[in-house]
Amino acid sequence: MKEFTYYTPTKVVFGVGTEAQVGALVREQHCKKVLIHYGGGSVQRSGLLDRIKASLDAAGVSYVELGGVVPNPHLDKAQEGIALCRQEGVDFLLAVGGGSVIDSAKCIGYGAANEGDVWDFYEGKRTPTACLPVGAVLTIAAAGSEMSNSSVITNTDGGWKRDCSNDLSRPVFAVMDPELTMTLPDYQTASGCVDIMMHTMERYFNSVPENMELTDGISEALMRTVMANARILHADPKNLKARSEIMWAGSLAHNDLTGCGGEGDWCTHRLEHEMGGMFDVTHGAGLAAIWASWARHVWTGAPQRFVQFATRVMGVEPGAADADTVERGIQALEQFYREIDMPTSMAELGIAPTEDQIRTMAEKCIPGGSVKSLTLEDRIAIYTAARG
Amino acid sequence: MKEFTYYTPTKVVFGVGTEAQVGALVREQHCKKVLIHYGGGSVQRSGLLDRIKASLDAAGVSYVELGGVVPNPHLDKAQEGIALCRQEGVDFLLAVGGGSVIDSAKCIGYGAANEGDVWDFYEGKRTPTACLPVGAVLTIAAAGSEMSNSSVITNTDGGWKRDCSNDLSRPVFAVMDPELTMTLPDYQTASGCVDIMMHTMERYFNSVPENMELTDGISEALMRTVMANARILHADPKNLKARSEIMWAGSLAHNDLTGCGGEGDWCTHRLEHEMGGMFDVTHGAGLAAIWASWARHVWTGAPQRFVQFATRVMGVEPGAADADTVERGIQALEQFYREIDMPTSMAELGIAPTEDQIRTMAEKCIPGGSVKSLTLEDRIAIYTAARG
Repeated sequence: MKEFTYYTPTKVVFGVGTEAQVGALVREQHCKKVLIHYGGGSVQRSGLLDRIKASLDAAGVSYVELGGVVPNPHLDKAQEGIALCRQEGVDFLLAVGGGSVIDSAKCIGYGAANEGDVWDFYEGKRTPTACLPVGAVLTIAAAGSEMSNSSVITNTDGGWKRDCSNDLSRPVFAVMDPELTMTLPDYQTASGCVDIMMHTMERYFNSVPENMELTDGISEALMRTVMANARILHADPKNLKARSEIMWAGSLAHNDLTGCGGEGDWCTHRLEHEMGGMFDVTHGAGLAAIWASWARHVWTGAPQRFVQFATRVMGVEPGAADADTVERGIQALEQFYREIDMPTSMAELGIAPTEDQIRTMAEKCIPGGSVKSLTLEDRIAIYTAARG
Repeated sequence: MKEFTYYTPTKVVFGVGTEAQVGALVREQHCKKVLIHYGGGSVQRSGLLDRIKASLDAAGVSYVELGGVVPNPHLDKAQEGIALCRQEGVDFLLAVGGGSVIDSAKCIGYGAANEGDVWDFYEGKRTPTACLPVGAVLTIAAAGSEMSNSSVITNTDGGWKRDCSNDLSRPVFAVMDPELTMTLPDYQTASGCVDIMMHTMERYFNSVPENMELTDGISEALMRTVMANARILHADPKNLKARSEIMWAGSLAHNDLTGCGGEGDWCTHRLEHEMGGMFDVTHGAGLAAIWASWARHVWTGAPQRFVQFATRVMGVEPGAADADTVERGIQALEQFYREIDMPTSMAELGIAPTEDQIRTMAEKCIPGGSVKSLTLEDRIAIYTAARG
């Protein structure tokens, strides 16, 4: 077991209709001007943006707005936001959307509160010393950015997708109305469920000899809950109870609770980030397409973890040999992904990288890993196995 | 399922030796003078107090100190602390101890930051509008006060034991070194484990028709972990891994995570508070002595919850009738309590209230309850059944 720091200051306000509280929550922050940040037209079409503006108006909070954030959010848009913040004297960022919008808001927060090029923080050249406060109204259960310290941004100049993790950017509040996620396309819902599973699995699979028993129990309960409710939503997308379970699981999966006492591996995310940088795939679907190939390549680095996953999470009866138990655990997860129409290979994901493209992704991929620290050859082998 | 707010801003720093970080953690708070608050001589004898002072000295933080907090902490001591804070210009409270010390520090924090009699807040006459920031170095895993918004104080003038719950008092940091709990007497360790179980069970048992599936899974994992590790510590009190599991469980049991989406019952705590107010018993042991009598009296108010507890937490095979399954679940918990030398009746606890004393406790006990809202007659019946 490793020592850990756990810091999740985000005030969660969870329940149907809670977006009406946004004005009051922002006013508590004693800010002068808010930037409302959002993505495409869905928050406009649904009337959510109007309800939020009405709530801010009622609270006497003034604001400007910037929409147009895309999935795998772009540095360009964040830089547009940084300039707007400086021009308008914005001192609070209200992200209305999913992880992409919240991540973009965090990037704006870093850029507006620090001198110099914000991309430096994502390249690891410098560490931010401040961040404008961010609040979130969540509309997609997936990334967990509403409670996390993480922000992933894509620099389209070179297709670099990079993360900046810093506690300064943890949202001060997160409004979570599960009803807002009901209109998501099924593919987005399922991709979100994969992302939530993977945020837990990236922490669950590691080589720390003695893991936290309580953390394991929490993680296993979370994964079983996500799978059960993802299956419900596949058949019944308007099921509010299942929407609620998935939404709360999304936050707990990535606010660090599921990592206390262990250490993260994060290779699946790193491998997928390069796929996302090159092909602009949906993040969760990309994770589903690559995970099993990673797992089969590395499981001998922590066999007891993969056996525990197979038996406690996937419900596999242990076999005589670990290799058999582990393989049936991996297959059971693949089977779950197929049930919710998620891909288990790049071919199923709809991308077909050439050998040169695989080498490029493998070279750009940030090294690391706890179960196994991946070499360039490892990364090439995993991408190749995942082509399908 | 109910809507909920979840707010746990406490920065947890967990691991062996983390008390050496106290100076740096306090300095981050930009305070001028610290009050070090503690209980009896154990923190002095163990050298912990000296190590903490050395850490504060190294960080250039000035401080005064106030020891002598007793279990079921007294209002008198907190008032002494409030006067000291005003006299010395204290603006940060560092609690070094268990729940009693942290609760006392919170009371000082309320008193020093608000005008008037601090007892008003515990009697519910007024609501605090501010609280001096509190940090904790935890030495007992039990109360969960290191992350909670709760503070329980006893006014010896009349034997009133009352709670004030307010997010203003959630500690800004909690240093948790499981090694510090190794020297606890076995009785204190076991009482702490009961308290941790009960903080989860008070939330788990309720009459909300549709509970949170994820919250249930987390709570059940937590309770199973606590029982397994309490048994380990009963045989092997120096087991660091078990100490770690219990310590982290203590915080998660009472930081509200285990209540998200449900509603608390809290009758067992209320009933025990009156026992503690009259007889000054150890809180956890008092909870163990009264819970089963409460459970047998009220279970028909939420039979499915008691069946779920019996089967998922206590490992009972479901019987043909709920009454049978529930009873065997209750007996299994009593058996666990006996295994760790905890009482299951007031006689085993070492107290023998008269009928008049039972009536007095029942009358003073704050009403309420989710599984069943207890009448005076209910409370008398439960106390009487628990006499043993």
